[in-house]
Amino acid sequence: MLGKRRRLAILAERSFTPREAKTAVGVLRYRREEVVAVIDSTRAGKTAQACAGTGGVVAVVADMTAAAAAGADTLLIGIAPQGGELPVEWRPALREALERGWDVVSGLHVFLGDDPELAQLARATGAHLFDLRRPPLERRIASNRAAAVDALVVLTVGTDCNVGKMTTALEITAELDSRGLKSGFVATGQTGMMIADHGVAVDALPADFVAGAVEALVIEAARDARVVVVEGQGALHHPSYSGVSLALLHGACPRALVLCHWAARARSHIAGEAVNEYSLPSLVAARNACEEAARWVHPARVIAVSLNTSDLEEDAARAECRAAERELGVPASDPVRFGAGPIADAIEAELENAEN
Amino acid sequence: MLGKRRRLAILAERSFTPREAKTAVGVLRYRREEVVAVIDSTRAGKTAQACAGTGGVVAVVADMTAAAAAGADTLLIGIAPQGGELPVEWRPALREALERGWDVVSGLHVFLGDDPELAQLARATGAHLFDLRRPPLERRIASNRAAAVDALVVLTVGTDCNVGKMTTALEITAELDSRGLKSGFVATGQTGMMIADHGVAVDALPADFVAGAVEALVIEAARDARVVVVEGQGALHHPSYSGVSLALLHGACPRALVLCHWAARARSHIAGEAVNEYSLPSLVAARNACEEAARWVHPARVIAVSLNTSDLEEDAARAECRAAERELGVPASDPVRFGAGPIADAIEAELENAEN
Repeated sequence: MLGKRRRLAILAERSFTPREAKTAVGVLRYRREEVVAVIDSTRAGKTAQACAGTGGVVAVVADMTAAAAAGADTLLIGIAPQGGELPVEWRPALREALERGWDVVSGLHVFLGDDPELAQLARATGAHLFDLRRPPLERRIASNRAAAVDALVVLTVGTDCNVGKMTTALEITAELDSRGLKSGFVATGQTGMMIADHGVAVDALPADFVAGAVEALVIEAARDARVVVVEGQGALHHPSYSGVSLALLHGACPRALVLCHWAARARSHIAGEAVNEYSLPSLVAARNACEEAARWVHPARVIAVSLNTSDLEEDAARAECRAAERELGVPASDPVRFGAGPIADAIEAELENAEN
Repeated sequence: MLGKRRRLAILAERSFTPREAKTAVGVLRYRREEVVAVIDSTRAGKTAQACAGTGGVVAVVADMTAAAAAGADTLLIGIAPQGGELPVEWRPALREALERGWDVVSGLHVFLGDDPELAQLARATGAHLFDLRRPPLERRIASNRAAAVDALVVLTVGTDCNVGKMTTALEITAELDSRGLKSGFVATGQTGMMIADHGVAVDALPADFVAGAVEALVIEAARDARVVVVEGQGALHHPSYSGVSLALLHGACPRALVLCHWAARARSHIAGEAVNEYSLPSLVAARNACEEAARWVHPARVIAVSLNTSDLEEDAARAECRAAERELGVPASDPVRFGAGPIADAIEAELENAEN
């Protein structure tokens, strides 16, 4: 991760659940071999698996001292709170990490490197502060160039935030690669960047440049891939983040969309925090919105559904997949639970369509 | 403007036309009494009116020396180039302005205050550098709150960039005020901010916070207005800027939309620079897209059309208005040429509807 193999302590104090600590969960799922501990004093002594449904026997520990004893050399901030600010109660842990000379990896909207105290501490011990959301200096304006790549561009879209758009994109990429079909994953958020070691956190770019950044990433990834799988962000129906979702759709110019949904969720998970009266759209409404919005610039079609069924028993999960298939007339799967096979099949069919 | 009455020299070197210098044109139209000269050596000796169709007898001059002779005390950068960078050939004029102790007002994406040479010069002479696109420190996440204001919220939307969304919003506001109907203008771009002395340049915000910034501006403006008129940005069909347009639509939660279009334009004016094969949508397609996208969060209806007919003879201009009215079944006008009366009538009707 970020230039070298690391021994990560993931900070998720009081928050180490799948819904609150999505960065932690993503890193544990796809970079587990680099994680030595998760810090959450309220869950110390448990395993990551027991708390987050992934991460196996990685230990949850109470504090930095225990993380150090586990051999950590890097502190990774494991949550992506709404608004992206740094909880004040985490500052002591950040100070301690830097005093120990550990690098710190952050995906917050606020930049640790701009914090005089933390920057000074890092300088003193030679530690690195990685602010993954800091915009790259290069600014690009999108102009439909991604529509011209030879690769099949696939974008994951969703009914809400935090439904599995990144996970779905990663699972699809892995499945295609296992079939010998060269694919490229485009990370568009901080957790995706931690996992892929490249990409841009587009939601932190000046808004004019979001589509242009995605366009550049797609063109780059398409150079040596037959399928480019782009991590989506937000949702067109989400009042807070719809602009980022549309910029991604129009910047990436996908031809195929995979619609992601958290099966047991009827209202947005952030409803309690800020969003008033925000009911989730139906799968049909979400599909129609994405296809309609794509048409404004470059047509795209939903070719598969990806469900997060982690709240459900297996029978219920399979029933949800079948229901989604009947509803939209395309394959559906929970790629983490049942594999990305049906989604990859749909992508292969689309690829054959295009190449014939 | 910006805290005091100014004597502005507007820099528009080699670019003083309505299409290239839209910031200059906006300031000349709505803040003419503060403009003493426009700098464009290729058009020196002409009047602003002759070059830009507005600005009356304000003189176009060849250089900074002539602008100083006209009594300028502030240099305003009069273009908003795509990408927002500072043309290198303008640097000498900026240096000279600062050396003279003039304030400099900029709406570029690049911040003059971050340029070591310019910042140093400003410090030396006590001049102010106003970077209107620098994001405010406060960051907000939108959550449908603007849907709850008592005022009628009207948003100008468009078929393209640079079609008259700001001008339309300003003309509507002035017309409503002249009718004794208290209205508030919400500036969402740098030129609107220069004219209104408040607002936020939303296209330069980190993308996650665009809708939230607009929401806050609408709530603020609604405190003492019956109608809030929000300046739109970009277009849903525009591959470069659609994300900003959607964030505005979902952040402002308007109930009424005024669709703006440059009557004689069939292809995007930036087609030659970056956007490949981008044909403008029809009025019907643009209306449908805006109403569809609004429905995802908060329904809105196009209640009037605003045409920029500046390229057309008067008969042709009137014919375009009639054609738009037939096409969409709502009033249409060129508010600069024929007045905003028909659009204000539609707003008043909507207001009565809502209050009954």
